[in-house]
Amino acid sequence: MQLLNGDVVLVTGGGSGLGLGVARHCRAEGAEIVILDVSTEKVRQLKEELGPEVLVMQGDVTKVDDLQACRAAILERHGKLNALIGAQGIFDGNVPLLQTPVDRMDGLFDEIFHVNVKGYLLSARIFFDLLQANNGAMVLTTSTAAYAADGGGVVYTATKGAVRSLVNQLAFEFAPDVRVNGVAPAGIANSQLRGPRSLGLDEQKQSDIPKDAFLSMFRSLSLLQDLPTPEDHGPIYAFLASRYNKIMTGQTVVADQGLLNRPVLHSRG
Amino acid sequence: MQLLNGDVVLVTGGGSGLGLGVARHCRAEGAEIVILDVSTEKVRQLKEELGPEVLVMQGDVTKVDDLQACRAAILERHGKLNALIGAQGIFDGNVPLLQTPVDRMDGLFDEIFHVNVKGYLLSARIFFDLLQANNGAMVLTTSTAAYAADGGGVVYTATKGAVRSLVNQLAFEFAPDVRVNGVAPAGIANSQLRGPRSLGLDEQKQSDIPKDAFLSMFRSLSLLQDLPTPEDHGPIYAFLASRYNKIMTGQTVVADQGLLNRPVLHSRG
Amino acid sequence: MQLLNGDVVLVTGGGSGLGLGVARHCRAEGAEIVILDVSTEKVRQLKEELGPEVLVMQGDVTKVDDLQACRAAILERHGKLNALIGAQGIFDGNVPLLQTPVDRMDGLFDEIFHVNVKGYLLSARIFFDLLQANNGAMVLTTSTAAYAADGGGVVYTATKGAVRSLVNQLAFEFAPDVRVNGVAPAGIANSQLRGPRSLGLDEQKQSDIPKDAFLSMFRSLSLLQDLPTPEDHGPIYAFLASRYNKIMTGQTVVADQGLLNRPVLHSRG
Amino acid sequence: MQLLNGDVVLVTGGGSGLGLGVARHCRAEGAEIVILDVSTEKVRQLKEELGPEVLVMQGDVTKVDDLQACRAAILERHGKLNALIGAQGIFDGNVPLLQTPVDRMDGLFDEIFHVNVKGYLLSARIFFDLLQANNGAMVLTTSTAAYAADGGGVVYTATKGAVRSLVNQLAFEFAPDVRVNGVAPAGIANSQLRGPRSLGLDEQKQSDIPKDAFLSMFRSLSLLQDLPTPEDHGPIYAFLASRYNKIMTGQTVVADQGLLNRPVLHSRG
Repeated sequence: MQLLNGDVVLVTGGGSGLGLGVARHCRAEGAEIVILDVSTEKVRQLKEELGPEVLVMQGDVTKVDDLQACRAAILERHGKLNALIGAQGIFDGNVPLLQTPVDRMDGLFDEIFHVNVKGYLLSARIFFDLLQANNGAMVLTTSTAAYAADGGGVVYTATKGAVRSLVNQLAFEFAPDVRVNGVAPAGIANSQLRGPRSLGLDEQKQSDIPKDAFLSMFRSLSLLQDLPTPEDHGPIYAFLASRYNKIMTGQTVVADQGLLNRPVLHSRG
Repeated sequence: MQLLNGDVVLVTGGGSGLGLGVARHCRAEGAEIVILDVSTEKVRQLKEELGPEVLVMQGDVTKVDDLQACRAAILERHGKLNALIGAQGIFDGNVPLLQTPVDRMDGLFDEIFHVNVKGYLLSARIFFDLLQANNGAMVLTTSTAAYAADGGGVVYTATKGAVRSLVNQLAFEFAPDVRVNGVAPAGIANSQLRGPRSLGLDEQKQSDIPKDAFLSMFRSLSLLQDLPTPEDHGPIYAFLASRYNKIMTGQTVVADQGLLNRPVLHSRG
Repeated sequence: MQLLNGDVVLVTGGGSGLGLGVARHCRAEGAEIVILDVSTEKVRQLKEELGPEVLVMQGDVTKVDDLQACRAAILERHGKLNALIGAQGIFDGNVPLLQTPVDRMDGLFDEIFHVNVKGYLLSARIFFDLLQANNGAMVLTTSTAAYAADGGGVVYTATKGAVRSLVNQLAFEFAPDVRVNGVAPAGIANSQLRGPRSLGLDEQKQSDIPKDAFLSMFRSLSLLQDLPTPEDHGPIYAFLASRYNKIMTGQTVVADQGLLNRPVLHSRG
Repeated sequence: MQLLNGDVVLVTGGGSGLGLGVARHCRAEGAEIVILDVSTEKVRQLKEELGPEVLVMQGDVTKVDDLQACRAAILERHGKLNALIGAQGIFDGNVPLLQTPVDRMDGLFDEIFHVNVKGYLLSARIFFDLLQANNGAMVLTTSTAAYAADGGGVVYTATKGAVRSLVNQLAFEFAPDVRVNGVAPAGIANSQLRGPRSLGLDEQKQSDIPKDAFLSMFRSLSLLQDLPTPEDHGPIYAFLASRYNKIMTGQTVVADQGLLNRPVLHSRG
């Protein structure tokens, strides 16, 4: 049984990291995948790798025109859309609020909220009718940061809480035609989530910050003791995006290797 | 890709309803299934239907001896166990606390807690080493009753809250070798969950109480507007029971057709 | 025992509705209150009513300069600050995403997120050192909309989810000196929350939308069967803002008259 | 303002530890307190300390007869009851499931579930009509163990999850006349919660297990860096038990010094 056989699945923010891993898994489950990414360079590389069979587009999820262009290209190429997986995001570099320059707050807030939250809202708005036509599904990416502290800085954390609640409301507004769910990862190996331009951290990646500490922390704190790859997240996204999910909507699945249930008193060593 | 190809999966409470639907789905995903059920009659019917290929055993999840016998039979027949899916449960007939005779409280409490909670604990205790040997998984059944009122009476509701927290703790104690997760359904078509003997309701089934009101309520309140079948729950259980779940442990997946996000002010008619 | 005896408490968005009710209660509990509100007219009326004893200031929580001016005035008048209660907010008029004009999305998003989320972030940034000096507290306002669908439209709902997670992270970053908690009301009688200018709804108030339906819905759905007043919320805010809260931080208190546990199957009539 | 002026408040399990601290605080807030405790020795000491003014009774919350006797004594002495605070509990000694002898499981399960869960159910059943007559309140004690792993062993954890959900359902069944809420502490200084007799641990107290590790862990992990006393929990219980709580029902307040939002990656040293 291939979960997504014959389905067309768009992955926004699918040019690298989590999104690309999920997109590859969806393809292995039989989907025609479409990838939208803001990075011209990533798009170029992926086009080269994946060839003309796969639609890979450059575009910015915060811009309605780019989403409309993507919609038009999907219709032209595939004539339909079955699932939209939202995987874009920016990290905030874990900079504590008290160390964030006051005059950078406005820029930081808009930069991260626009990509991490508005991008999902606009995608939902632009692609709903296509999804509706096929009783399709949306899967959005939030984070364990939405559930407890220290999964990022204040702005990143707030965006992830926003997505968690957005999943509730979109599921409500889009029912019964389109199911909407979320996935909340903890850490991801080689995360390509970049830092904010507004703090001059856009060359940083989430997995750089601070890399060794992160790896060893994650291995010691998470119950399953491994830092999962982007591809490891594929089966959850693919199931939620598929017609085989007939029951779940408005829910977020926490995929955290047990981080939220980590030891308090006991070391399990 | 068959999620459970070559795996041995035990479904306790698998003789009918949710458990049987999940067991059938696991078989379709490639598993050798084993079914344990307390009902002699259900076991007899299933043996007839499924033939000698499938191990179907009569046994009571609240009795260590029965679980040990089941363990021995699994080892003899299959030599291993990859996943344990707990699907047993008793309903409490939705009888309000104030209408429950005081002299029945003790019996009611023990009857429902022993099946709905202790049964999972004992199973976890008895089957852990087999699961550990294969980096296996447990999937327990809780309910939306664990999350909000009016999913049952007080005793049923309390048992389901207990299971939700049990999932956290078992995941912690069994990590990193065995993943433990829960599923929280809302309503299930033709649920065979029986009422409590201690209230003289053991001939009642959850889906009888009050049947038409339940169906029409569920269709109008749940966002996806359908009452899912036992089989519809299969893909979620099968994924959580499989080796393809490398990330989730200690979590409960709410599979409720959107019931917890149902309308407040708006009718969506 | 007066919870806030001798304390200086700033209520942002305190010019009317929830904020004003909470401010009045804090005063009754012994606090010197300071009110910041964006509405010139409300500020004028309150100054008239409360007289020169109470510092009432016009200012916009989304503007650092206004917050700095407020900070300076508080220091001049009172020399200290013990608690910051955030009560500002804009409603989104419950307009479904699919009925929101695409070209209004950007404006709507920024307008509501800036007031409902960035306002709290900036206040936290500007007032932290004053609060720290007194082992003070912050109390932010989120909503049941953060927990389940249909408590507002998509943008309002997302802002309230953002605040819920922000409470976690601010509590973490500000510990152990400053406690940070949230309150999540459901409905409030005579709510003065205005609709968004970006949709031309800024003359609407939350309690207008649609007024009679809201009242009768709330009375029938909420377990306690009443629509609480702003003042009714006072004791919760005052406790969380006071030195008597030595234990809670990073938590949101749901103050919903039982709305999230409302009936599913049963009518309780 | 005294929150409980003129109110009669029963604290079950009030003979020591959390319950006694809360009872003392309620008295300071103006309540006539009544204490029910299973320990003859604690009851004797408290009678000596508190004198004839305070009704202190020996009784077992798992026995209907003892609760009925307590009810009769309250009616005789005070003629009414305004609030019931449930503070009894047994700890499970943090013994991992795999180290619990299989033949002790049945006894352990019943012992802890009867005190920690059935005790609340029976109290609710026996005292409801008195509470209803005064538009009273119930406050039950759960634990952060209900929210995440490693707050106790499997049985304790499961009981606390049960109480969390019980709060939802009792609030529903008792509305609109009686409000029902929960409090979820993390650690408590000098907790007198005893271990289970069924494991031979009834001479152990929760605060003994393992004492120094617990203290230093709690101080380093909890955001507020202190282990609160029983009395510190008083203001939360007293508010929820009082007539000033007009809005909250069916909710559990997490009073954890920030433990659930403790650091992941960062040390905050």
